[in-house]
Amino acid sequence: MTILQNPAAPVIVPAGALPRHLLSAGDLDRDAALRILDTATRLDQAIAGREVRKLPTLRGRTVVNLFYEDSTRTRISFELAAKRLSADVINFSAKGSSVSKGESLKDTALTLQAMGADAVVCRHSSSGAPERLSAWVDGHVINAGDGTHEHPTQALLDAYTLRRHLAPGGSLEGRRVVIVGDVLHSRVARSNVLLLSTLGVRVTLVAPPTLLPVGVDTWPADVSYDLDASLVGADAVMMLRVQRERMGGAFFPTEREYSRSYGLDSRRAALLARHGIVMHPGPMNRGMEITPQVADSAGSVIVEQVANGVTVRMAVLYLLLTGGRDE
Amino acid sequence: MTILQNPAAPVIVPAGALPRHLLSAGDLDRDAALRILDTATRLDQAIAGREVRKLPTLRGRTVVNLFYEDSTRTRISFELAAKRLSADVINFSAKGSSVSKGESLKDTALTLQAMGADAVVCRHSSSGAPERLSAWVDGHVINAGDGTHEHPTQALLDAYTLRRHLAPGGSLEGRRVVIVGDVLHSRVARSNVLLLSTLGVRVTLVAPPTLLPVGVDTWPADVSYDLDASLVGADAVMMLRVQRERMGGAFFPTEREYSRSYGLDSRRAALLARHGIVMHPGPMNRGMEITPQVADSAGSVIVEQVANGVTVRMAVLYLLLTGGRDE
Amino acid sequence: MTILQNPAAPVIVPAGALPRHLLSAGDLDRDAALRILDTATRLDQAIAGREVRKLPTLRGRTVVNLFYEDSTRTRISFELAAKRLSADVINFSAKGSSVSKGESLKDTALTLQAMGADAVVCRHSSSGAPERLSAWVDGHVINAGDGTHEHPTQALLDAYTLRRHLAPGGSLEGRRVVIVGDVLHSRVARSNVLLLSTLGVRVTLVAPPTLLPVGVDTWPADVSYDLDASLVGADAVMMLRVQRERMGGAFFPTEREYSRSYGLDSRRAALLARHGIVMHPGPMNRGMEITPQVADSAGSVIVEQVANGVTVRMAVLYLLLTGGRDE
Repeated sequence: MTILQNPAAPVIVPAGALPRHLLSAGDLDRDAALRILDTATRLDQAIAGREVRKLPTLRGRTVVNLFYEDSTRTRISFELAAKRLSADVINFSAKGSSVSKGESLKDTALTLQAMGADAVVCRHSSSGAPERLSAWVDGHVINAGDGTHEHPTQALLDAYTLRRHLAPGGSLEGRRVVIVGDVLHSRVARSNVLLLSTLGVRVTLVAPPTLLPVGVDTWPADVSYDLDASLVGADAVMMLRVQRERMGGAFFPTEREYSRSYGLDSRRAALLARHGIVMHPGPMNRGMEITPQVADSAGSVIVEQVANGVTVRMAVLYLLLTGGRDE
Repeated sequence: MTILQNPAAPVIVPAGALPRHLLSAGDLDRDAALRILDTATRLDQAIAGREVRKLPTLRGRTVVNLFYEDSTRTRISFELAAKRLSADVINFSAKGSSVSKGESLKDTALTLQAMGADAVVCRHSSSGAPERLSAWVDGHVINAGDGTHEHPTQALLDAYTLRRHLAPGGSLEGRRVVIVGDVLHSRVARSNVLLLSTLGVRVTLVAPPTLLPVGVDTWPADVSYDLDASLVGADAVMMLRVQRERMGGAFFPTEREYSRSYGLDSRRAALLARHGIVMHPGPMNRGMEITPQVADSAGSVIVEQVANGVTVRMAVLYLLLTGGRDE
Repeated sequence: MTILQNPAAPVIVPAGALPRHLLSAGDLDRDAALRILDTATRLDQAIAGREVRKLPTLRGRTVVNLFYEDSTRTRISFELAAKRLSADVINFSAKGSSVSKGESLKDTALTLQAMGADAVVCRHSSSGAPERLSAWVDGHVINAGDGTHEHPTQALLDAYTLRRHLAPGGSLEGRRVVIVGDVLHSRVARSNVLLLSTLGVRVTLVAPPTLLPVGVDTWPADVSYDLDASLVGADAVMMLRVQRERMGGAFFPTEREYSRSYGLDSRRAALLARHGIVMHPGPMNRGMEITPQVADSAGSVIVEQVANGVTVRMAVLYLLLTGGRDE
């Protein structure tokens, strides 16, 4: 047990070993995952108790947002998390950079390390890019979404949100979560399955057969093609974002048909357990995978997920960069 | 009367109620407008008196620049204003963001709010967008220019500049300002007419008939088609930026003709009162609406307007986010 | 001799007059150049000795990165340098700015000055742009690369790197450096020739005749067309980046032919003195002007150059903005 540097209220950080980098939700065992979630809770409380809502913990540290894909939402979330811990933040959008002059990922990595990046938050359209990056830098690499592979901080914020609503301070063991949509291309689905199963959650994937990955039967999750049946009594449903550019091709004839088969409307949301919550990683296609009524309903925690994203990313940066020890 | 937090010299902020958001110059009554101008003066003095030229007033607060339209100039002005008050600043350019994936303004608003934005500075090509935004967020919304509607901080910086030159610390009552050019499409003109009339200034609009809005006769301003006559003895002239893309169509045959009829050259500038000043919101089309000689003349305060922009925006951020009270 | 403000270890800054702006490596006499290099060494030590790796020296100062050309690498290097000295940094990319609305460089300069920029770091595709800028602003202008003209901080970081390896704390007098490649279009080559000759280094330029500038015979450097002969016993080799877009035209038939004649491979690198080092300003075209084996070899200091870039730019900002005096 250690204490955060100088907060208004001392922050107790639980023990548990974290990997050097956060590349996959599967790298976190139960203790490590819970340690991040508990640290997030405590950081949230520490900041709430302060007049000036930031902590000095990462002063003098540099966090680089290395984004090869546009994602304003995720970039801002990490930027805010780092700034609330008083780190300096450098935004590096690969568009219009040396990358467009053909610089390799390796040389970019070596450059960032030479410049003294303590953490590199990497978003890339190619699965595995953050892992390759981690071989070349001394700093800590955080996967902020790579291709169709993983998005571990999204899974952490989802788990944090689930715990707040379904088991405050306690265990998600035995809870049931339904994940709906384009599982094949979804790094959010993949990371959530890994993390939630580690936390003892029963996950059901619902998707049209063409949008399930090969080998999904080896995942620690059930698979169903019947959305209504899966929702009955579930503790939560996560709607995945539909990539419109994948519509009209091999997967779906029309948006309308998708909505009818796999969209969440009020009738379907009512099938959840009474305390059941509705989640979405955003940005939503209102009217496509979710109706506006459900998105804005009392059971929707979609906006809260965004807030929790900042908190959970603070915890990840804090634990990776300080090891949870006072510095 | 209250005192700013920790400045080298105490800053006395005058009383007067401000709206929650700054959406329109018309939302400010005389007391509120003067309170902003007086606060700007005092912040300027407080910073000038410090070795380190920033104030700790907004530490821990987050200001988001949400720009759906390019405007480096206005974005930087707000960014500097926020940083001089020690706020954290997040730049959110809608290009290449979720917006391009079709995210609605509402979901963007909810996202920013969830992330803890204390103020959202919004620039949008659509008139009314900042007002819609304000319905969805708890933070303070500042209109940084919406379509052809309003640009209230531009009007405030113009009023601040006018007061410095025409009535230091005093009243602009009875002063006469001529606004020249494309009034129809100008949010600057609209906001200035509203604010200056509130402050007792007599405003004359000079524009070709095709570039005056319907209903201009109900505005608190005179209208004239004779630029020379309007300038005689005026206290100030504001030249509006010509949108070149609107040239050559229904409005004007050529740039040359525009310059001849509505451009400000040395002969025309000499018609102003001896103490009269020349203003322009920038960026200028030198040689079009204003000659380089006039732009760089002793009577031109165009560069000073830019400096005053930072000061006035500090005052707006300060008053909206703290209510002018010590925190 | 003066002392830096508040560092953990006092920083002794040597005497020597610097120009107001850093526009050309040729503006630095020997004492001024050494003063920058020595200050860089001491800043590096001061930061290394601190728990929080930044210095408060430039708190309240504003550094503007005014980039008319993309250069993420250089922009980030200056941004980090400024932030490690606690300055506020504004990034101004000319794309999508008023510049695209036709605003002149002069008006942009006047705008930045009015906003209170203490330093403007300018990158421009047009040779001489930073110099023109310097005529219009009170702040300090730093040339971060202008057309085919100069890139003085690159030369400073190269000299700093050379000194660390070849003459720690001492003189580079009589050392021999070979610069290879497209000298005609290289601002890096030009600035290095000027600075290194000032420091007593013997520079040899190796390039195909079509890629040497007119008048190169008046430069303080030798010229050779025989790469192998030039490398024998040299203390360092600097490989210039090949602009692929210049390939296939008048200069070279193919990339392959370029590599054979002017590329650095292991055989050639072995011709250097035993202590000889391999340099490149980055980003590299691995396999073109340098093989991966050489780029990653023990004698390569390419990654260290990047780190030294931040340190040297800190020294430049520090000396220009404070004059090296305590403030």
